[in-house]
Amino acid sequence: MRNFKFTLAYDGTDFHGWQVQPDRLTIQGALADGLRRITGESVMPQGSGRTDAGVHALGQVASCAIASSIPAANLMVALNDVLPAAIRVLHIEEAPAEFHARKSARGKSYQFRIFRGDICPPFLARYVYHHPYPLDEQAMVAAAAEIVGERDFTSLAAVDPERREDDGARSNVRTVFCSQWQRAGDESIYTVRGSGFLHHMVRNLVGMFVLIGKGSLRATDIARILQARNRSANPGATAPASGLYLVSVEY
Amino acid sequence: MRNFKFTLAYDGTDFHGWQVQPDRLTIQGALADGLRRITGESVMPQGSGRTDAGVHALGQVASCAIASSIPAANLMVALNDVLPAAIRVLHIEEAPAEFHARKSARGKSYQFRIFRGDICPPFLARYVYHHPYPLDEQAMVAAAAEIVGERDFTSLAAVDPERREDDGARSNVRTVFCSQWQRAGDESIYTVRGSGFLHHMVRNLVGMFVLIGKGSLRATDIARILQARNRSANPGATAPASGLYLVSVEY
Repeated sequence: MRNFKFTLAYDGTDFHGWQVQPDRLTIQGALADGLRRITGESVMPQGSGRTDAGVHALGQVASCAIASSIPAANLMVALNDVLPAAIRVLHIEEAPAEFHARKSARGKSYQFRIFRGDICPPFLARYVYHHPYPLDEQAMVAAAAEIVGERDFTSLAAVDPERREDDGARSNVRTVFCSQWQRAGDESIYTVRGSGFLHHMVRNLVGMFVLIGKGSLRATDIARILQARNRSANPGATAPASGLYLVSVEY
Repeated sequence: MRNFKFTLAYDGTDFHGWQVQPDRLTIQGALADGLRRITGESVMPQGSGRTDAGVHALGQVASCAIASSIPAANLMVALNDVLPAAIRVLHIEEAPAEFHARKSARGKSYQFRIFRGDICPPFLARYVYHHPYPLDEQAMVAAAAEIVGERDFTSLAAVDPERREDDGARSNVRTVFCSQWQRAGDESIYTVRGSGFLHHMVRNLVGMFVLIGKGSLRATDIARILQARNRSANPGATAPASGLYLVSVEY
């Protein structure tokens, strides 16, 4: 058996998320199906983490072992032939036997795109969160810095403690290496890089930062929200999936 | 009654084209439905021309008369609230009673986007034609110039002589004002501006230019193809709808 590392980009709009589900179109299911069609083998590629329905990826990583002797480059061309155009394999390489896309991950980066203009172009509607109302960008920039470091992010996680985006440690402590808002044309873009992320953590962070941008929450409230270790302490909504991108996974 | 001019952008991927059809999602149908919900009036906005299923618009124009006294700016906000995110009203203005989006049109511009890279990003798949094979761009640039002027474009039209994209004159003579290929990053973009266009005309032009780019047809063949006044004289395929954009309509 050879162990493979796959790097994938996908438009998550029309998928029921990463994780395979019976009778539903999922990224993991489509990839497994493609591998079966090409190699004849029933394998289940493991992702670096699950992405929810509608969430996109610029650099999701998956791994699995395959018996076939097909060269990696040929496998990539063949997969891109059989996969839907909304999923592209960007890179395939052989990896050491012990490599596992989720367990070996050391860090991840996400982006969240908010479209700020009055009219969201129809060609962006699937790829951003449209928020045409005023936001105090300076307050959001300052707030983003407040979450850098090792912290318990329970208050920023979905209330499904058994399910973690990265499925890794049992604790809800994660380290955020960098967290920042930037303006790019009509968009406000949030970039966050960390050791791992809880389920809904990035979307809940964005929801919290948007409340700060609106002025109904202050950056100084963040310490209290984190300390509560309870989702209900964070009054922000979970920002829509359409704006979220898994940018890259570090090993 | 007040006569209105609507300027629209849309992602045509999930629509069965412009023209209203029973039990099918169409742009014209969605716009009529939105107007009915807002004004209570059953009106059928007329487009500058039909766009086929999957074809996009950056600046389609439609017109219709409405009895309601709603201000144009409010109507625009209300329409963008009720329309699907894939259709946006960019502008609404009152027009003279005699204004008709199709009959008053003096010219139109289209673009066609070919993505040339090996792997088409999933976020572009709906919005381009992916052609990852070599094309002689200089030959295509030269060929594009060959169709400028007043000509009978029967050989570049769909074989449904009763249906014209612009529905205007009975003849298949149209004037092309400019026609050019340009490179922009990983894309080759064809821009054409003319007095009007026959059904499938731009996509058939692109199909012909792609054959010229491949070297299986020469720019000097174009005069012969046009002279035949027969679709079968043009060996090119009809290029996919996903790459085509109605850019603007001139009045």
